[in-house]
Amino acid sequence: MTQIYNRIALIGLGLIASSMAHAIKRAGLAGEVVGYARSNETRTIARDMGLCDRIYDTAAEAAEGSDLVVLCVPVGAMESVAIEIAPVLKAGTTVSDVGSVKRAVIDAVAPHLPAGVHFVPAHPLAGTEHSGPTSGFAELFDGRWCIVVPDLCDDEAVVKKLEDLWRAMGSNVDTMDADHHDLVLAVTSHTPHLIAYTMVGVADDLGRVTDSEVIKYSAAGFRDFTRIAASDPTMWRDVFLNNKDATLEILGRFTEELFVLQRAIREGNGAHLHDYFTRTRSIRRSIIEAGQDTAAPNFGRVQSDTK
Amino acid sequence: MTQIYNRIALIGLGLIASSMAHAIKRAGLAGEVVGYARSNETRTIARDMGLCDRIYDTAAEAAEGSDLVVLCVPVGAMESVAIEIAPVLKAGTTVSDVGSVKRAVIDAVAPHLPAGVHFVPAHPLAGTEHSGPTSGFAELFDGRWCIVVPDLCDDEAVVKKLEDLWRAMGSNVDTMDADHHDLVLAVTSHTPHLIAYTMVGVADDLGRVTDSEVIKYSAAGFRDFTRIAASDPTMWRDVFLNNKDATLEILGRFTEELFVLQRAIREGNGAHLHDYFTRTRSIRRSIIEAGQDTAAPNFGRVQSDTK
Repeated sequence: MTQIYNRIALIGLGLIASSMAHAIKRAGLAGEVVGYARSNETRTIARDMGLCDRIYDTAAEAAEGSDLVVLCVPVGAMESVAIEIAPVLKAGTTVSDVGSVKRAVIDAVAPHLPAGVHFVPAHPLAGTEHSGPTSGFAELFDGRWCIVVPDLCDDEAVVKKLEDLWRAMGSNVDTMDADHHDLVLAVTSHTPHLIAYTMVGVADDLGRVTDSEVIKYSAAGFRDFTRIAASDPTMWRDVFLNNKDATLEILGRFTEELFVLQRAIREGNGAHLHDYFTRTRSIRRSIIEAGQDTAAPNFGRVQSDTK
Repeated sequence: MTQIYNRIALIGLGLIASSMAHAIKRAGLAGEVVGYARSNETRTIARDMGLCDRIYDTAAEAAEGSDLVVLCVPVGAMESVAIEIAPVLKAGTTVSDVGSVKRAVIDAVAPHLPAGVHFVPAHPLAGTEHSGPTSGFAELFDGRWCIVVPDLCDDEAVVKKLEDLWRAMGSNVDTMDADHHDLVLAVTSHTPHLIAYTMVGVADDLGRVTDSEVIKYSAAGFRDFTRIAASDPTMWRDVFLNNKDATLEILGRFTEELFVLQRAIREGNGAHLHDYFTRTRSIRRSIIEAGQDTAAPNFGRVQSDTK
């Protein structure tokens, strides 16, 4: 694989950044990968494991001299990082990010960047329920989609170079504008996460059904919700605060639909329930055919792990 | 392993019954396993694959002479099967079932059984999103829980024998009364399934976010919901119609909690969201420690399967 950037700076060293570091090294996509994390503990772990070629104590030092700077911090922290690194960015540098919302990141970051710096937001649709610098792995992006948002950049070569990086890290790449991204993600990610958090919270609250019972009997369906409800709280707080309108709109659709099903249960309308459940079944098939999930029963959970 | 019953009849040959047939054979738990399915096609498949020692064309023939008869049909079909087999059941026979609700099954089945027949309902908390006679496998119950409901049977030896069977098929066994079972399952299974069905239906409905986008970008969270929303529609229709009160109660709690989170998003109350998401994270850890799910990222999905 050919080197795509001379020096890539990863600002923030969580699951996505650490997976990027591994994927960049796997394919030799940068002359140098450097990193920065706010917490001293994370920096020490990253240094000890040799995650990057160099870990700096400030974001500005990491960004300086890099031709690609990727902001991998929670959405709510993007603005302060942009303010900190802006003075060291030279014309021609590309700044990108991996945030789960795009309109709010553009509003927070773009005003602070100097002229001549390209801002090309991106969002890799990949993750696990784990977080931190040790949770990353090179294969995270393989076969997943990365959405690139070129709203602010009319230099096609700059956008293409970033797309090439994501493809070389294993992703499929699509482009769309920020507002459409935020609506699509409200449906496929943000609202599902909020609902999963809610269901897990309700189960936790129920005094009569003790914690122990909820946990023991979780294999009956509930445990599928707990994975995404175990995702990083800070990241998800920022997602909901920063994709408020689209999330509230989809939530409104969700509760509307839920009330119709609730009424069908109350009234004993079996035909309505059966039709609804038949329709939703076919979506699973499409997802498997599109290569976005495994057809193995129970997600291919290893049975011996779950004894 | 010792033989526990002389002859076991499985009425209905879907995922659970076919897994029982495999698990019973694996450990040699019955002298003979016989079966019946309503559809001619299912009976033919079951015969061709040698699922049971014998497949009968009527439930009564399968039940006759069996010392254990297990009703493995959707909850809404339990009563008609009970009426059909009742005349051939001799005193001392144990009738059980594997339905996902227990109060409604007791009300539907118990009145039809002759005196001297023991009715010991049970519910194995195990499954996959697949259904039919070819979907079963011997390991389905390994390390999962089976809840036995001995409300109607005061013969401890009879109950213990059924528990021994489930343990020998790989399950852990708990006992509880029917009403408590239905409440616990409303939390850990029925409401999560309804919510998953709803979310998948909403995504399917949204015209602006085309089907193709929902599917392509499903790895961002949505795909976790589609597995349980792909479960058998008839089975789940019957679950909701027959565990109406508990499901509606838990749904009420769910929407209440969802509205509180929705308001926190609308008002920008980040502290509330962060606290909530931190609390739910710990439940995942407990489920993994209890051996009810895998700690591997993304449920241990095989990455090469999902490319």
